[in-house]
Amino acid sequence: MGGLYMKAVVYQGNGVVKVQEVEKPTIIKADDAIVRVTTAAICGSDLHIIHGVLPVDPGTVIGHEFVGIVEEVGSAVTTVKPGDRVLSMAGINCGKCPTCRSRKVWACPNGGIFGNGPMFGNLQGVQAEFARVQYADEVLTKIPDQLEDEQVIFVGDILATGYLGITGVKPDDRGLIKPGGSVAIYGSGPVGLCTLAAAQIYGAAKIIMVDPLEYRLEMAGKMGADVLINPDKVDPVKAILEATNGLGAELAVEASGSDEALYNCIHSVCAAGTVNILGIVNKPIQLDFSKLIAKNITIEAGICNVIHTQELLDLISAARIDMMPIITHTMPLADAEKAYDIFDKRTDGVVKIILKP
Amino acid sequence: MGGLYMKAVVYQGNGVVKVQEVEKPTIIKADDAIVRVTTAAICGSDLHIIHGVLPVDPGTVIGHEFVGIVEEVGSAVTTVKPGDRVLSMAGINCGKCPTCRSRKVWACPNGGIFGNGPMFGNLQGVQAEFARVQYADEVLTKIPDQLEDEQVIFVGDILATGYLGITGVKPDDRGLIKPGGSVAIYGSGPVGLCTLAAAQIYGAAKIIMVDPLEYRLEMAGKMGADVLINPDKVDPVKAILEATNGLGAELAVEASGSDEALYNCIHSVCAAGTVNILGIVNKPIQLDFSKLIAKNITIEAGICNVIHTQELLDLISAARIDMMPIITHTMPLADAEKAYDIFDKRTDGVVKIILKP
Amino acid sequence: MGGLYMKAVVYQGNGVVKVQEVEKPTIIKADDAIVRVTTAAICGSDLHIIHGVLPVDPGTVIGHEFVGIVEEVGSAVTTVKPGDRVLSMAGINCGKCPTCRSRKVWACPNGGIFGNGPMFGNLQGVQAEFARVQYADEVLTKIPDQLEDEQVIFVGDILATGYLGITGVKPDDRGLIKPGGSVAIYGSGPVGLCTLAAAQIYGAAKIIMVDPLEYRLEMAGKMGADVLINPDKVDPVKAILEATNGLGAELAVEASGSDEALYNCIHSVCAAGTVNILGIVNKPIQLDFSKLIAKNITIEAGICNVIHTQELLDLISAARIDMMPIITHTMPLADAEKAYDIFDKRTDGVVKIILKP
Amino acid sequence: MGGLYMKAVVYQGNGVVKVQEVEKPTIIKADDAIVRVTTAAICGSDLHIIHGVLPVDPGTVIGHEFVGIVEEVGSAVTTVKPGDRVLSMAGINCGKCPTCRSRKVWACPNGGIFGNGPMFGNLQGVQAEFARVQYADEVLTKIPDQLEDEQVIFVGDILATGYLGITGVKPDDRGLIKPGGSVAIYGSGPVGLCTLAAAQIYGAAKIIMVDPLEYRLEMAGKMGADVLINPDKVDPVKAILEATNGLGAELAVEASGSDEALYNCIHSVCAAGTVNILGIVNKPIQLDFSKLIAKNITIEAGICNVIHTQELLDLISAARIDMMPIITHTMPLADAEKAYDIFDKRTDGVVKIILKP
Repeated sequence: MGGLYMKAVVYQGNGVVKVQEVEKPTIIKADDAIVRVTTAAICGSDLHIIHGVLPVDPGTVIGHEFVGIVEEVGSAVTTVKPGDRVLSMAGINCGKCPTCRSRKVWACPNGGIFGNGPMFGNLQGVQAEFARVQYADEVLTKIPDQLEDEQVIFVGDILATGYLGITGVKPDDRGLIKPGGSVAIYGSGPVGLCTLAAAQIYGAAKIIMVDPLEYRLEMAGKMGADVLINPDKVDPVKAILEATNGLGAELAVEASGSDEALYNCIHSVCAAGTVNILGIVNKPIQLDFSKLIAKNITIEAGICNVIHTQELLDLISAARIDMMPIITHTMPLADAEKAYDIFDKRTDGVVKIILKP
Repeated sequence: MGGLYMKAVVYQGNGVVKVQEVEKPTIIKADDAIVRVTTAAICGSDLHIIHGVLPVDPGTVIGHEFVGIVEEVGSAVTTVKPGDRVLSMAGINCGKCPTCRSRKVWACPNGGIFGNGPMFGNLQGVQAEFARVQYADEVLTKIPDQLEDEQVIFVGDILATGYLGITGVKPDDRGLIKPGGSVAIYGSGPVGLCTLAAAQIYGAAKIIMVDPLEYRLEMAGKMGADVLINPDKVDPVKAILEATNGLGAELAVEASGSDEALYNCIHSVCAAGTVNILGIVNKPIQLDFSKLIAKNITIEAGICNVIHTQELLDLISAARIDMMPIITHTMPLADAEKAYDIFDKRTDGVVKIILKP
Repeated sequence: MGGLYMKAVVYQGNGVVKVQEVEKPTIIKADDAIVRVTTAAICGSDLHIIHGVLPVDPGTVIGHEFVGIVEEVGSAVTTVKPGDRVLSMAGINCGKCPTCRSRKVWACPNGGIFGNGPMFGNLQGVQAEFARVQYADEVLTKIPDQLEDEQVIFVGDILATGYLGITGVKPDDRGLIKPGGSVAIYGSGPVGLCTLAAAQIYGAAKIIMVDPLEYRLEMAGKMGADVLINPDKVDPVKAILEATNGLGAELAVEASGSDEALYNCIHSVCAAGTVNILGIVNKPIQLDFSKLIAKNITIEAGICNVIHTQELLDLISAARIDMMPIITHTMPLADAEKAYDIFDKRTDGVVKIILKP
Repeated sequence: MGGLYMKAVVYQGNGVVKVQEVEKPTIIKADDAIVRVTTAAICGSDLHIIHGVLPVDPGTVIGHEFVGIVEEVGSAVTTVKPGDRVLSMAGINCGKCPTCRSRKVWACPNGGIFGNGPMFGNLQGVQAEFARVQYADEVLTKIPDQLEDEQVIFVGDILATGYLGITGVKPDDRGLIKPGGSVAIYGSGPVGLCTLAAAQIYGAAKIIMVDPLEYRLEMAGKMGADVLINPDKVDPVKAILEATNGLGAELAVEASGSDEALYNCIHSVCAAGTVNILGIVNKPIQLDFSKLIAKNITIEAGICNVIHTQELLDLISAARIDMMPIITHTMPLADAEKAYDIFDKRTDGVVKIILKP
């Protein structure tokens, strides 16, 4: 494999993706690495590109979730070498600026997200045979031998996001629940299910999942959710209050991107509770703080800050976290167009699709 | 003094207060105490009553900030006794329910705030010669002999509120800044100045005060604020960014009750920063979470949770906190009508008014 | 049952216990309750009495672990009433002194431990048909209907102790491990196994149990321990380092009371690791701080501080914690002498013995 | 200045130091920097070398506290450049290994301390005209223009150590005191006084300094200590208990290196209090854990983990921390022998000596 050209998922504009031949990336800076992608995945935020919500220039390779094998490294790279099997963060960060030093790596002024367009550094994506990874020492992590690609592919993106749902959007690991706490998660898609896994790690005693898709609720149930709520059938706020002795959940996580879910989150939490917004809500929301104030609510909103990689690898190695059940489809990279269609339309019981270059 | 009647500030309806004779309160339950009020204060939230924002029935004694001397206690009271000089929380809480046990005393279902009307337990207020204090063991704290009334009168209300501005609205004492952090405080009135004092205790390296009233900014400067901003003269967001190397403050506290200040707070904080809303904003606010999400912001909103009384007394005893400078007026209770007028109109360089029964 | 006399386990001096008739306790103070004991247990620290390590006057009823049904309450008790099924802390605390208010309830100057002799308030014990519980509002907690006595009996003592092994001996809930962390627990007896359960709740990825009794290691394995070490067969420190990539565990808990185990704990932890000493080591230990300093070790030592009752009940209700497997024997109170003998000699595969009055 | 040789303080063995000509260091690795030392200091641990407690080979340049101007950098260095004025950590760390990533930089397997001999990486020291700094991006930090050398020279060593005295030896910033807490510091030398400054930042309400040298106590008083205790005149434990209402301090810091002080620390803290050992105690200490356990004490011991540089620079810039008063002597590097003599014998009212190359 290799050579000057490679296959990649290329955004065509107007919501169209195609698998095409593009130039294979090469080392440009001393701290770059080239990684041969062995496993990639399609993320909900890739759909934002298709839907025109996240601007990406036509001709850009998209995708930001992948693991692979290091093919080549620049002269300054010291922590990985050719042949190493590695996972990657969904984006890059320099590791040396004050922002990175304060562990806010998502906000690194030198950073960006693979294949997420000009708002995020205009980097090429990773649904491809090869990927160029800048700041390789910061962005890549060796995968323990005993773990498969599929066990760790979510560590650098949706699992980090779900984990953020429970640890909080600040980089200080405080945790938004105490052991024994209750968590309501709106959205039982990939991010919501990762949040469920994180809630279990943090000792939640009652995990409540809300989703209108029955097969996704069912998956949540199998993964250990305690209460399953279909908001098309019952009022989720009422159901959450009932499940929590009328007090409300300690934490409500918005992982569906719906503005209605966001409002519901606010009414689902107890006094001094927290709402954590992981989904992107595209219209402005009206909030009446004179009411919120009496409840002493905290509202957080955040995107993925990949700072718990080692912790997550340890938890996966110990079988405390297993996200493989959410992989419902594994398809060749060549079939990416079809894969995007399934994922977008939520057909075939899809939760998460893996692409194999 | 004493007898069956006493003087008190009584709300007349339609924004009018009068000093009148009312019945002196008596012990009703075994855990009650009757306190002879020696010093009371007028709070910004008392003005909400006058302005019709906080509903209170005509005929109600108002006021919730006071210290005094225990006159009589019920049979179950064990921690204070007649003759003890005590400070009081602004409200009551039972201390035994699950909510109190989890240190969310402001939300106690058996609780309320003195003189704050039917939304808050419909309790009689404390701008009076005597006050009945339910759950006396929970609500009253003996004052160390060496401290004057005026040094401690704010502990149970506005100082606890300002402290909450820095510790956060949850009852877990985590603190919203790290030592060396920067704090922007919108509003240099009584609560804002208490927040300033709390920020100093938490090791803030840069404290920025925003207020259109120059004399209040000047007071903040004397109390140790590092940067003083008059929003009528300069754009406060721009000035805060300049004062923080373009990054924004780690924490912005809204202590003015203005919706514009709230919007400004959101634009004043750095990545992973926190906005804490202490002022009551009466109209709904529109927030665009798709923008907030990229900055990983936390927004908190809360009312006073009086759980740091001992800590605050220790800090006051050690002269680490001194709120006496904010007392600009001391007037007899009999002059309460005039005092309310000054406080409401912000004339005479007023910051805080003490009433002496 | 009932009447003026009752059956109880009475310490005779010289290491002898007997089941005898003693006077049934009565309400003495307004905040007392009398509880009819339905289930009691024998604790490792009861053996300290038998062994002469913990001084108790002959004639004292011993035992401090129990649940029961409220028979009668004093006039000031408000949170429980006759007929309520309740669990109790192993000791009492007043709930109102500064020490209790700072959540250090074990250190309450008005407190003590049931049946633990003059060093701990000289209170009568609870291996009896009835128990007098002072400060009943603080000490007793209603048991949710769906939970059996045996599910909750450890909440007020050994489970609280094991929990302290992971949360730390300070009352601030910080937790001594992060999710994904490793914990070595020396001692797989009742306290060690409770510590194992707590480690799981706090997200430990690797839990290592050390005990010379194979049947106790086996029980730890069934409860989810990852690595089982018999120190009679392998060097535990070497084995722990091997299991942790040569770094050492993040936390080592001494739950065996052996001084050798304590030394081993210190050598089992990683840089910036913590040793938490729950077992009582009766001889002075020599420590070389010039060596400890280079490793930045924290050593904690503590006795049970029962402040997580609600949290533990929530975790038990949610089946996140199930300590029933450690109950190897259930015997009538009348057979207490035999039960003490089995427990002391560790025969019959004993881990924990329940006594039924 | 410059050339192939330079002046440096060289350890001669047998407790003798001399200022000699040695080879000027050069860039060896791509991530090295050469710094022209503008200001150096003598540390208490340099005396351990003289006293034979810390083994250093004769011929080694000693010293580890310095600031200077970057002279030359290797090709991989990106955060500093020639001409930059920088402060340095007292040692080096690679920044990329798992230990560094977990913020335990002192324990980096690739690290060491300048001039501290074979136990600490056998690095050349910095009491010299030039110093080679490995991992320059990790170890050096640009100094804000408005700050003088003397204001920041302690940031990378003794101030970081004193800060560790209050934050705790773990790298998680939790803080060993709450605002309003009390701290007893045994030793009012350079480290003890830095601990005093840190305690003020963390909101301590009562800071108690213990030292037999009156002039050092006096300096502590000027810097804001609340209680000054000369242990040659009064029993320090008794005095500390008196100063804390009989409860003991929340935290006792051992910053004197005396075993007696360490024992006193243990008796100086309250229930659930912490003892933090910063001084090196050279003989084993006997501890009776059966007594410690009843008090739920935490004992920490640690060496400097330089992770708060930015925080400390912000605090110094804001004049919240000013350690310049502890500089009692400024001498030319050429007079280092005399300087060591003064510092060792504690004559001339010495606290801290600056050396100017």
